[in-house]
Amino acid sequence: MPQLRIALAQINSTVGDLAGNAQLHVDWARKAAEAGAHVVVFPEMSLTGYPVEDLALRKTFAQGSRQAVDDLARRLVEAGCGELLVYLGYLDSDEAGPRDAAAALYGGEVVGRQFKHHLPNYGVFDEQRWFKAGQTLDVVRLHGLDIGMVICEDIWQDGGPVTALGEAGVDLVVAPNASPYERSKDDIRLPLVARRAAEAKAPLVYSNLVGGQDDLVFDGDSIVVGAGGELLGRAPQFVEHLLVVDLDLPAGGHSAEGSFSGLTVRRRTLGTEPVPAYERIAEAPICEPLSDEAEVWSALVVGLRDYVQKNGFRSVTFGFSGGIDSAITAALAADALGADAVYGVSMPSAYSSEHSRSDAAELARRLGCHFRTEPVEDMVRVYVDQLKLAGTGLAEENIQARVRGMLLMTLSNLDGHLVLATGNKTELAVGYSTIYGDAVGGFAPIKDVFKTHVWELARWRNAEAEKRGETPPIPENSITKPPSAELRPGQLDTDSLPDYPLLDDILDDYVEGDRGYADLLAAGFDAETIDRVIRMVDRAEYKRRQYPIGTKITFKAFGRDRRLPITNGWREGDQRG
Amino acid sequence: MPQLRIALAQINSTVGDLAGNAQLHVDWARKAAEAGAHVVVFPEMSLTGYPVEDLALRKTFAQGSRQAVDDLARRLVEAGCGELLVYLGYLDSDEAGPRDAAAALYGGEVVGRQFKHHLPNYGVFDEQRWFKAGQTLDVVRLHGLDIGMVICEDIWQDGGPVTALGEAGVDLVVAPNASPYERSKDDIRLPLVARRAAEAKAPLVYSNLVGGQDDLVFDGDSIVVGAGGELLGRAPQFVEHLLVVDLDLPAGGHSAEGSFSGLTVRRRTLGTEPVPAYERIAEAPICEPLSDEAEVWSALVVGLRDYVQKNGFRSVTFGFSGGIDSAITAALAADALGADAVYGVSMPSAYSSEHSRSDAAELARRLGCHFRTEPVEDMVRVYVDQLKLAGTGLAEENIQARVRGMLLMTLSNLDGHLVLATGNKTELAVGYSTIYGDAVGGFAPIKDVFKTHVWELARWRNAEAEKRGETPPIPENSITKPPSAELRPGQLDTDSLPDYPLLDDILDDYVEGDRGYADLLAAGFDAETIDRVIRMVDRAEYKRRQYPIGTKITFKAFGRDRRLPITNGWREGDQRG
Repeated sequence: MPQLRIALAQINSTVGDLAGNAQLHVDWARKAAEAGAHVVVFPEMSLTGYPVEDLALRKTFAQGSRQAVDDLARRLVEAGCGELLVYLGYLDSDEAGPRDAAAALYGGEVVGRQFKHHLPNYGVFDEQRWFKAGQTLDVVRLHGLDIGMVICEDIWQDGGPVTALGEAGVDLVVAPNASPYERSKDDIRLPLVARRAAEAKAPLVYSNLVGGQDDLVFDGDSIVVGAGGELLGRAPQFVEHLLVVDLDLPAGGHSAEGSFSGLTVRRRTLGTEPVPAYERIAEAPICEPLSDEAEVWSALVVGLRDYVQKNGFRSVTFGFSGGIDSAITAALAADALGADAVYGVSMPSAYSSEHSRSDAAELARRLGCHFRTEPVEDMVRVYVDQLKLAGTGLAEENIQARVRGMLLMTLSNLDGHLVLATGNKTELAVGYSTIYGDAVGGFAPIKDVFKTHVWELARWRNAEAEKRGETPPIPENSITKPPSAELRPGQLDTDSLPDYPLLDDILDDYVEGDRGYADLLAAGFDAETIDRVIRMVDRAEYKRRQYPIGTKITFKAFGRDRRLPITNGWREGDQRG
Repeated sequence: MPQLRIALAQINSTVGDLAGNAQLHVDWARKAAEAGAHVVVFPEMSLTGYPVEDLALRKTFAQGSRQAVDDLARRLVEAGCGELLVYLGYLDSDEAGPRDAAAALYGGEVVGRQFKHHLPNYGVFDEQRWFKAGQTLDVVRLHGLDIGMVICEDIWQDGGPVTALGEAGVDLVVAPNASPYERSKDDIRLPLVARRAAEAKAPLVYSNLVGGQDDLVFDGDSIVVGAGGELLGRAPQFVEHLLVVDLDLPAGGHSAEGSFSGLTVRRRTLGTEPVPAYERIAEAPICEPLSDEAEVWSALVVGLRDYVQKNGFRSVTFGFSGGIDSAITAALAADALGADAVYGVSMPSAYSSEHSRSDAAELARRLGCHFRTEPVEDMVRVYVDQLKLAGTGLAEENIQARVRGMLLMTLSNLDGHLVLATGNKTELAVGYSTIYGDAVGGFAPIKDVFKTHVWELARWRNAEAEKRGETPPIPENSITKPPSAELRPGQLDTDSLPDYPLLDDILDDYVEGDRGYADLLAAGFDAETIDRVIRMVDRAEYKRRQYPIGTKITFKAFGRDRRLPITNGWREGDQRG
């Protein structure tokens, strides 16, 4: 039975950095060659990064990308990878428009070139804006074995390109992917890939990106599945990795050219010599997927780390309030960048409790990060006196939050730190934050984490530390005390908001589920609370628009995932008789 | 020769406000009936407003919209419009998904219902995200005359639905539209509509929305074109209007059902009785399009007015710096809302020149708006002293801008004004603004106006005032003095930026034209300036993301029209040998 050694290069590309990404391809292809692989599969748009967004429409960028493929073909030969068949993803462009493309490189040449057929245009994806769809399938014959390819969304289609490859008859299907992380998505991928492998009647190699790109994070989790649907190898999540798998390919060189399921299959033969005998490696690793909490934590860490590093920052700063949101942000930042890159600032006002100061200091002590205290009373007083704000309520409360935001931006100007906004998804949903106050920042690490989930993650992270015999990073008091913005004496979040478990339940239905008033009533929430929450969410849209980006972890994150008008006369429930 | 009286109801709907929009339909249909019209054509999605964005995906909203159509059919009969054939636009939804739909109402019934065939997914449009495409064409026979319909983008297609209607044979085509304003677009619309009328071999009625919706403004400019391409009527721009046109329809009731150009044509006959004789009205008005300056000014005024009013604000506030940007913003706001709704604030710092204070006061005097002075020296000093900012450059400069932003937000909290950001497109492009400083605001009226264009508009507005014998609103000194942010002694914009005419030329090529480095060199700009400008533009992406929305007037506005990653390693020109 013919065998082939396949490597999956799960790399962390940077959008737009063609030179840096090309170097990654050379480095990882060399590793694959050294591991004796015959084929290496990089992820979707591995050479350009993903998503390139409207850079897809920039002609010079498409030219640069095509050129980078040709240059890379040559460089791979120089690097000793001339006999390695290299699949990679890049941006192409022809008379029809830009293309989400994959190329097969071998012996210094482009031996196959294919465009993505199915272009997702929902959720965070705007691919029908960016790309034109492909119509052809390129099969490459190597050592007498026929290898077909499909790109990402193409495998989500019943009766699509994979079916066509199955009809044409191939020995192996490779699938470069750029599938952003969201909670529970990996539960869907494996059965899907298994189904497609069965349809192709051939093993399927699913190679996914890792790393953060603005609000998206890619989790890797690359897999190889046999023709019978059996899992043959699985890479770890959230780290660059070369997964090497020896495949038994039962058939051997039987594909046909022509039209299958309405698609054109083309062929290119590199050689029909059987694979020279080689020593089979041990079973490929099948990494266990992370637990739900570990997975989310990793997503948040990698999303933050890559935003900071890919944008040339070395350190972050933000307010240490003593509360849970800043505490978890600090723990994430320390995990992402090291404690030495974290600059916490306590900014007590007249209304700050003693425990908020001591909890903030305790957080810094546990993490071992930088910490300073800048009281804001003098700054606040000038405004309060000049504008006569005493007793004005909201105006006086917001001033404190805004003085703090301004102070952090000043420290950023002085020392080059990136400012982080520490708001969570619940706050962002109901607008429980001060625009230009606690909302300032270049990145918002937990903006897609509901408040109740913040607490769960904090408890999980502390427990992990205890398991490892380390100091739990988050002060217990920050987890257990009732949340407060401390903008007036004795203030509690629950003065203005429903209890967080109830609030998050409603938000889960209204924001994630896009459900209407009747559905919410049917779910058992009371009418008054539904009204109140829905109105808060709808009215906060203008604040969300100006909020920094942050890592998406849920099915529907605020931002390009949920595009609603600011000017919006629709109110759920107004239609009741 | 059969005649028909057609009315085009160019209305200003509000997104989501089904009840308010339905009332508009009743009011304007009644006007059309009173004018003796047989048919009235409302714009695309006139009942829901446009664009509804992801509200299209909300099932309850689609249900509400369908219900509103049925209710409206009944109400129109009660309002005495039972024998008026009413075309309107709304959101529909069926098993395939949401639909951009139009309905024909007559005698209390829905007598035709059609979905948009061509869904634009470029520029500001995400219609392939929101809608599924239609496949059928509904022809309604009224008084023995066959009327077909198409929706907006459908008329931009060669060989599309209009061709099919032409083959089926119709006497008239109605086209509800929601075509957002951009400079010079009306030069394209008329020849296009004329070409389609020729293809349909029938007159074409193009009814467009007016009014502002977030960053878009619709200019109306509804037109009626004869089968020979001749312009038969044209509504004014930027105001609600009922355009009534008597049409001679040479043929009469000759359409066929079946498949044409791959589309299914269905028919419904309301009556074959010829139109009763009626007295022909005088020629329909053919309004002259506005001059380029007047058109842009109107777009900015209407965009600002509708954002303010549709979001429930009554007044606006912003800094009066004495410079041209705040002066033109003030003139726009006074034109949009009346001077009594404008609250100017002079916020001098230690570096403010005498002329900036006096020019600000002069602006307020000319407009007759509210005006107060709030020195920021004390506020700035607390920061400078506590954080030791003296001599730190950027940090010290930004503090002044941020203290001002905070001050405006406080006045907004106290008095309920909407804060306006006064930045122009040039500033926004190169990042020449302080985030959370002069960038604060809920709306940015001139964010899509290049700096050189700001000056042109200011001169034009003053000249218009002079023509009308009014006081020119903008102080001459604000137009003629060299621009300065006045954040340090003697500072001029040209210390940090190329001269504005040169800068705007480069930006026009790089931002509007999406051109690359070689193109810019070929256009005659020098390499160093290109490098400098491109880098400034690319690096300012994070600031633009957090900037308030503002009215789009150009081909490519910042925002959903130009979607680039923040994390972006691509730099034009880096590819040079």
